[in-house]
Amino acid sequence: MGENMPTLTAKQLEQITSRIFEAAGVPADRALQVATSLVESNLVGHDSHGVIRIMNYLRYLRTGVVDPHAEIEVLQETATTALVDAHWAIGQVAATKGMAMAIEKARQSQISVVALRHCGHIGRLGEYAMMAAEQGLMGAVLCSTGPACAAPYGGIGRVLATNPIAVAVPAGDRPPFLMDVATTVVAEGKLKLARSKKEPVPLGWILDKEGNPTTNAEDFYAGGVLLPFGGHKGYALCLLVEILGAVLTGQGSGSSPAWRGGAGVVMWAMDLQTFGPLAQFGSGVDALFEGVKAGPTARGVDEILIPGEPEFRAKQKRLRDGIPVPESVWQDIVREAEGLGVQVTEELAE
Amino acid sequence: MGENMPTLTAKQLEQITSRIFEAAGVPADRALQVATSLVESNLVGHDSHGVIRIMNYLRYLRTGVVDPHAEIEVLQETATTALVDAHWAIGQVAATKGMAMAIEKARQSQISVVALRHCGHIGRLGEYAMMAAEQGLMGAVLCSTGPACAAPYGGIGRVLATNPIAVAVPAGDRPPFLMDVATTVVAEGKLKLARSKKEPVPLGWILDKEGNPTTNAEDFYAGGVLLPFGGHKGYALCLLVEILGAVLTGQGSGSSPAWRGGAGVVMWAMDLQTFGPLAQFGSGVDALFEGVKAGPTARGVDEILIPGEPEFRAKQKRLRDGIPVPESVWQDIVREAEGLGVQVTEELAE
Repeated sequence: MGENMPTLTAKQLEQITSRIFEAAGVPADRALQVATSLVESNLVGHDSHGVIRIMNYLRYLRTGVVDPHAEIEVLQETATTALVDAHWAIGQVAATKGMAMAIEKARQSQISVVALRHCGHIGRLGEYAMMAAEQGLMGAVLCSTGPACAAPYGGIGRVLATNPIAVAVPAGDRPPFLMDVATTVVAEGKLKLARSKKEPVPLGWILDKEGNPTTNAEDFYAGGVLLPFGGHKGYALCLLVEILGAVLTGQGSGSSPAWRGGAGVVMWAMDLQTFGPLAQFGSGVDALFEGVKAGPTARGVDEILIPGEPEFRAKQKRLRDGIPVPESVWQDIVREAEGLGVQVTEELAE
Repeated sequence: MGENMPTLTAKQLEQITSRIFEAAGVPADRALQVATSLVESNLVGHDSHGVIRIMNYLRYLRTGVVDPHAEIEVLQETATTALVDAHWAIGQVAATKGMAMAIEKARQSQISVVALRHCGHIGRLGEYAMMAAEQGLMGAVLCSTGPACAAPYGGIGRVLATNPIAVAVPAGDRPPFLMDVATTVVAEGKLKLARSKKEPVPLGWILDKEGNPTTNAEDFYAGGVLLPFGGHKGYALCLLVEILGAVLTGQGSGSSPAWRGGAGVVMWAMDLQTFGPLAQFGSGVDALFEGVKAGPTARGVDEILIPGEPEFRAKQKRLRDGIPVPESVWQDIVREAEGLGVQVTEELAE
């Protein structure tokens, strides 16, 4: 490991993360699940959703926002639907169970929808959409988050949230299509990063608390707002996520004074074979992607990418070369680990 | 009727439109259906999808792109799904049947998906999504169109299309949520309008054929491209519509040399009652909307609008005051009508 940017294998990082959560009181199977989920985010290149979150998650456990032993309860169920109360379980555990249910139902009944309320932070939505795509189904996930930090189109107040959406569709020989986006211009993590680096953000990301456009991320933290992406169209998507994730699930809105964290999640799975042979669909998707990629590129652009390709490539590279962890994050992890009695050097030596 | 902007009631306009299509060889029930659909677009304020389309639709009929008698064939069907070949039927007839099937299936099985290929132009997608919302279900529609006229993110070639999406969700006492958008920055109709008025378009709508940003709509018609809305996020949605609308349905892509017009359509309906009483959901949605609308507005903005509110208000106004039809459009309609032996003045006198 280099001294300024430790590089670990996915397996090492999973093992350390898992031991940390076990030591913090999470049952072994759930600890492993959340560890695998966080490291998967690092593998696909989304470090903002990776092991950097260990510290937040430990705080949720310590403050009781998340209950490591919560029983995930299915409140209502049909052949095609389920309503689930996660009772503030670790989000990854709840969301994985939700998508597994959706996939099982879609296999039997072609299409399904599962709504979950009272989940802890579920991490990167793309992970759950990909569960479906990896099994030859289409998967879609939306998640109402909080606290409110985003303005509606035409507004300047904090009434919505980053409300992400993910959709994955399998291809043939090519990697699946994976769209995984906040419905705000950016997720809040990018503001945090700009603020810590004291760098300006592009105009159009945020407004200050008086509603003026600004490039200073500090203005967001002083009562400003994130904007929906793509004007009134992204606003409509952001509000749709709020309707389904907050109201339909019974989670409640991130703008409500009663909001206590966590996520309301809606997940769909769809069996594509009902419309024809999967191999035929896959080769059609491959051909479409190849046509898109073969088109002329804009100046300064080397390659047209299919959504999901950057993640696929990052994962191949990091499985091969390891996952670099910034020194400051690594020090935080080691400190937390040792505070919980987990000897990181021993874990690495195993 | 004023001399420069004839104003007709919805009923008058439907009757004239219906008679025109009947005279052009469309069976009476289908003629009435397409007339009602076009006039509904005028009612909700989307004149670009209203009776101005009569002339295009007559051209489709004359050139055989659309078959007025086509039998809409259900190729495969389960309790939750259907695959439909419309055999180039009038798009409105096919899409209305598709959503009616989706609603019926969702009533029985909570959620459903219907895929249609070889539809004529289906008009305004919001109409079909609203069919579901008006019956207390959530409805979603996407439509792969052509010919290819839009670039992928990072590209400058015509490989995608305006690929619209609509989603409608019922509220309680308030009008339903209705998102109804092209996944390009604007639909092509807005370029046509700017071109005819010789007005510049905003930067960011289109590129010229060399890939340069331009404000001249002529550059689009000289081989340029429309851009997806919201950068890589709108591109992902646009491509998703192409995957489902063009590949999954079997319609084929608007970028294919074999493309012969029309639309591939995928429609979902979801019964919200499976998650709880509809009245409770409706009042939760109303409260959410009221919270969003109560937030502070940006400078120069009078009111924060919920997607669907502009359409709802336009419809109330035009049902009361009538539908103004621009003189040039009216003259085209009268000329087509009289060419087909339909006496417009007699229809109006009835």
